[in-house]
Amino acid sequence: MPQHTRVVLPEDRYFDPYPPQKAIALQLYRLVKDLPLVCPHGHIDPRIFADPEYTFSNPAEMLITPDHYVFRMLYSQGIPLEHLGIPRRDGGAVERDPRKIWQLFAEHFYLFRATPTGMWWTHMLYSVFGVTQKLNGATAQAIYDQIMAQLALPEFRPRRLYERFNIEVLCTTDAATDRLEHHRAIRASGWPGRILPTLRLDGLANMYAPDWRQHIAALAEVSGREISSYRTFIQALEERRAFFKEMGAHATDHSPVMVHVPDLTEQEVERIFQRGLKGNVSTEEALLFTGHMILESARMSIEDGMVMQLHPGSYRNHNRWVYDTFGPDSGGDIPVQIEFTRALHTLLNRYGNDPRLTLIVFTLDESTYSRELAPLAGHYPALKLGPPWWFQDSVNGMLRYRQLTIDAAGFYNTVGFNDDTRSFPSIPARHDLWRRMEANWLAGLVVRGILDLDDAAEMIQDSAYRLAKRVYRFDF
Amino acid sequence: MPQHTRVVLPEDRYFDPYPPQKAIALQLYRLVKDLPLVCPHGHIDPRIFADPEYTFSNPAEMLITPDHYVFRMLYSQGIPLEHLGIPRRDGGAVERDPRKIWQLFAEHFYLFRATPTGMWWTHMLYSVFGVTQKLNGATAQAIYDQIMAQLALPEFRPRRLYERFNIEVLCTTDAATDRLEHHRAIRASGWPGRILPTLRLDGLANMYAPDWRQHIAALAEVSGREISSYRTFIQALEERRAFFKEMGAHATDHSPVMVHVPDLTEQEVERIFQRGLKGNVSTEEALLFTGHMILESARMSIEDGMVMQLHPGSYRNHNRWVYDTFGPDSGGDIPVQIEFTRALHTLLNRYGNDPRLTLIVFTLDESTYSRELAPLAGHYPALKLGPPWWFQDSVNGMLRYRQLTIDAAGFYNTVGFNDDTRSFPSIPARHDLWRRMEANWLAGLVVRGILDLDDAAEMIQDSAYRLAKRVYRFDF
Amino acid sequence: MPQHTRVVLPEDRYFDPYPPQKAIALQLYRLVKDLPLVCPHGHIDPRIFADPEYTFSNPAEMLITPDHYVFRMLYSQGIPLEHLGIPRRDGGAVERDPRKIWQLFAEHFYLFRATPTGMWWTHMLYSVFGVTQKLNGATAQAIYDQIMAQLALPEFRPRRLYERFNIEVLCTTDAATDRLEHHRAIRASGWPGRILPTLRLDGLANMYAPDWRQHIAALAEVSGREISSYRTFIQALEERRAFFKEMGAHATDHSPVMVHVPDLTEQEVERIFQRGLKGNVSTEEALLFTGHMILESARMSIEDGMVMQLHPGSYRNHNRWVYDTFGPDSGGDIPVQIEFTRALHTLLNRYGNDPRLTLIVFTLDESTYSRELAPLAGHYPALKLGPPWWFQDSVNGMLRYRQLTIDAAGFYNTVGFNDDTRSFPSIPARHDLWRRMEANWLAGLVVRGILDLDDAAEMIQDSAYRLAKRVYRFDF
Repeated sequence: MPQHTRVVLPEDRYFDPYPPQKAIALQLYRLVKDLPLVCPHGHIDPRIFADPEYTFSNPAEMLITPDHYVFRMLYSQGIPLEHLGIPRRDGGAVERDPRKIWQLFAEHFYLFRATPTGMWWTHMLYSVFGVTQKLNGATAQAIYDQIMAQLALPEFRPRRLYERFNIEVLCTTDAATDRLEHHRAIRASGWPGRILPTLRLDGLANMYAPDWRQHIAALAEVSGREISSYRTFIQALEERRAFFKEMGAHATDHSPVMVHVPDLTEQEVERIFQRGLKGNVSTEEALLFTGHMILESARMSIEDGMVMQLHPGSYRNHNRWVYDTFGPDSGGDIPVQIEFTRALHTLLNRYGNDPRLTLIVFTLDESTYSRELAPLAGHYPALKLGPPWWFQDSVNGMLRYRQLTIDAAGFYNTVGFNDDTRSFPSIPARHDLWRRMEANWLAGLVVRGILDLDDAAEMIQDSAYRLAKRVYRFDF
Repeated sequence: MPQHTRVVLPEDRYFDPYPPQKAIALQLYRLVKDLPLVCPHGHIDPRIFADPEYTFSNPAEMLITPDHYVFRMLYSQGIPLEHLGIPRRDGGAVERDPRKIWQLFAEHFYLFRATPTGMWWTHMLYSVFGVTQKLNGATAQAIYDQIMAQLALPEFRPRRLYERFNIEVLCTTDAATDRLEHHRAIRASGWPGRILPTLRLDGLANMYAPDWRQHIAALAEVSGREISSYRTFIQALEERRAFFKEMGAHATDHSPVMVHVPDLTEQEVERIFQRGLKGNVSTEEALLFTGHMILESARMSIEDGMVMQLHPGSYRNHNRWVYDTFGPDSGGDIPVQIEFTRALHTLLNRYGNDPRLTLIVFTLDESTYSRELAPLAGHYPALKLGPPWWFQDSVNGMLRYRQLTIDAAGFYNTVGFNDDTRSFPSIPARHDLWRRMEANWLAGLVVRGILDLDDAAEMIQDSAYRLAKRVYRFDF
Repeated sequence: MPQHTRVVLPEDRYFDPYPPQKAIALQLYRLVKDLPLVCPHGHIDPRIFADPEYTFSNPAEMLITPDHYVFRMLYSQGIPLEHLGIPRRDGGAVERDPRKIWQLFAEHFYLFRATPTGMWWTHMLYSVFGVTQKLNGATAQAIYDQIMAQLALPEFRPRRLYERFNIEVLCTTDAATDRLEHHRAIRASGWPGRILPTLRLDGLANMYAPDWRQHIAALAEVSGREISSYRTFIQALEERRAFFKEMGAHATDHSPVMVHVPDLTEQEVERIFQRGLKGNVSTEEALLFTGHMILESARMSIEDGMVMQLHPGSYRNHNRWVYDTFGPDSGGDIPVQIEFTRALHTLLNRYGNDPRLTLIVFTLDESTYSRELAPLAGHYPALKLGPPWWFQDSVNGMLRYRQLTIDAAGFYNTVGFNDDTRSFPSIPARHDLWRRMEANWLAGLVVRGILDLDDAAEMIQDSAYRLAKRVYRFDF
């Protein structure tokens, strides 16, 4: 192989190589590369913004152990999670030396070749920390030192990074029963950063989950009322929604494994709810209840104006041993086949023609894009199509998303991007990848005579910034 | 953005941009761009050809209100269908001013950016009406005037457009119980245009539909016989087929939501038929009957030589409110998952090895292309693969179609193109898009050394013209 | 069309046309084009290596009649299989003149335009036999003579071709009850070629198949023991595995139509086994047993170190008439929808975290790539993703495979290539196509700044040679 100079982040990366297309892609990308980041959906811990002095303690704690996108890949190649410092639920021994964790990770960084995680890391290491060397076993310690030296600096505290990243709003994901103490603290501090909560329905809605009753008990406690009937349950939930809204929430979020919305009578719902409270509900009934809660949630969204996010189809904690040993969000969530056309029929017939409802649907089953979701989004006023998500948040996934949905859904029934991340320093890299891939897709249409440049210029700005603001009703 | 001259329809549009590939694409495209249009499947109203003086009254009535591809997209963005002049079943108030409808549409034409509908419109407005301005709110009225002035001219009457469009044959879709009065009138007029009927089986075959008994009653009336048994039903249906064939039909058409073909005894069929007549059939039985009719239809096709078209997987009238208010074909048909390998097992085992049968299968579920339909078409003599259809009739859909089916089905188990349209003026644009995308696909294979230019030249002519004629047995 | 010189096999074929990408693809391809061929999975008859003097009798017998990839396409266009010399089970008349068969095939070779079979043939005819003319009706006899003249030469005997093809190891597929006489003969001959058996489980595991009891009887015979209980069955099977391993096998192979792994008790398994032995098992029970055998096979693989291959989802002998008349492997196997996430849950929870197990999963349902298989392979240490297979072993299929799996599975949870062929002379062509498409994919990533050239150079060598050796544990 010939020698070649390593340019860490060429400005034209990820674009199609043919120069006329690349030139247009670059022209479009430059229109949006410095626009603020709108982050309507993600999993950043609000705690890091609550304390103005919060400091990341080391590169491993910041970048590896909280991010299952990262450690699942090493696990798949036989690296025990304990060696990566993932805490065991039983308090058993795990590696505690962040340098060793970092070294082990660096030695296996080649596993991320051509993956989105690899791209995000290269971008993040360079643009956040100025790392220009390729991460591997040989460079691991030097890069560790380079990052470590910066983490101690005030400008690497989360609030300062939020500002440096040019984030306009960042929504977290919070259990419906959360008291939002960190969000309160952020508000009370007077810091102008917009960290907004999102009400996650799963704990209370997914009756099939083993800990559903604990969530109901938590709801009773936080509400200060007895939850003895479906009606009191809904009242308590509506109060939580009002509280979240008051605390700045614009949206709810729901991720059931399946998504069939049944058409139950009040009596049926109440009966299942009572059985659920007593813990003697059947799996089928529990799934009916979970499906019903999607319907109820749509009704509440129409009433309180919260945007409704639905992303079904992830079989959570598929690997029981990993779950039992390390807990949830340990890389063991695996997608399953999903169906929307029949499953959402009851909901869309009741509320889909109501323009007050915004229901954003995400999928991990790409076969539903052209078959179901794009035609649904291209018809029902209430339904919008969320961006490629999780396993599809990639160069390939983003291109497929547009190619599979543009024909039937059009562009304006989509909602821009969200980063959905647990890794705060990866946020700019993720948005940058989206902006690049959208610019590249649009440039491909321009050079094929499908779009003119004026339209493409509007669309890239919509995609990068304006659509997310509009759909999530951020009016700042 | 820099200024650029607007070329409405560059000759090389939609082709891949790399010049050597584009040059070959253009070379191939030029071989077929002026070939006559063979239109074996579509939904043009034969009425417009029956009266030689038929004149489109205005642009909205010609281009917007009859075409659910168009108005569903505006509806998805919250525009009431009443504002677009879609007639309500209850006779309720809808916009009647075509200028206002046109204005509203033009203001939202940006919703069609990068969609096939957008491409068809741009082509149609330019090539049929000479419109060179971009359609938007500002240009709406001028373009309206420009079209309106032409509609009054004799050369814009349907028969003259048929000739100008260089259509060789145009098949309509007609209920099996239709008396084909318009087709009779066309024949009687001596006009040489070939407007041929196609016998649509759905009304009589889809027992699960709420109006099945009305269709049976209509069959009884048109046949002048009592339909009291499955046997008399089949006799009456066979008479309809004979009548359609005499009137020029080459094909039948069937679009059930599901496609499971059961293996029923005569007694079982008769029993279900009797229950159907009495209106006390179960959903399961009705679906069995519908599946059985696919089998019966194959048998009849072998006997009378009519080509059999099957395109399952559309959940008709998914949006009940829209259906109740505006009727069928209002943009609310949504695809569902479909399965062919097991579902067609009975049919293919009984008739699939019979070369007298031509069964053309279409799908809206693209996951079936490489998994089921291409392997089936690459094995069974009777089964052919229809072109990308409805939501897939697009730049993206056409490319995926070839990439997902060529390996297992080959090229010669496909059947060329059909436009499947309700919008007469869009026909040339739709065929042109297909011819371009096929030329582009073939050019991509030539520059990769997969095909030589001689083979590609044959294939583009097969694709654009010869395959459809051969498969539908048009021997003029 | 202009005249153009026919270059049979341009060195840069199948690569993307843009010169900078093509140059990198060629550079990568050259790193691997002469590497030895590792063939861990295929269907070559070991008999052709057992006799050192084995000679292919004519082109039709060598290239057409054993290869259902080839004759199914002609059958789909109405050519009777009898005309192609496919032997009938009933001994009925079939064409016996290889020249006539060859002529008929050549006249229809245009059916393979743009298909992988067409590409393999062109490569094979040129590189193995020096054929430079295009195969068609006019050239058929001259090419026949050209091949025929060579088949008689010693260097066209299978062992000599094995060496000329630079094959390092070639695994066959053998019933678990096979005595491996041909493999014994090869070993005994002292010839250094590595022809290794693979233990195919289907006969013994797929209780739903009509001939399951015959396979059990064959097991009893070859084992010299009565198979009267599940326990004796497993003991006999373990002995067969030990025997295969002693004979050089590195892997087992299993291809059930469905893949649900149940969690049965020993008593349940024994009860179903007893009913199976008596021939009064229900379809449901037979499928449970088949699923259970996947689990048992994983347990045995952990114990004996054999790599486990699983490729479900082919509905075997879909065309009963073709099966009854010509037997299995006659082109009538059709894929069906498949599901892995739920289906493999029991297996992966029991053994998926065990690094001693290597379970390679193949699919014919490409919708499972990004949805299920890539996420599973990117998490479970035991699970690896097999290459695109059978109907997907193509330019299109290979590209889709990488684009659909790289994000979640990464590159190093895949296992390189296998040719899976019944046509010995096609082996170099198939590996060459893989090496080209991988070089092209990697080059596309390099020109987009996603990979650097050093990484791509490592990956192409892993893909073409090293991964297959490592995963199948070939340590020669």
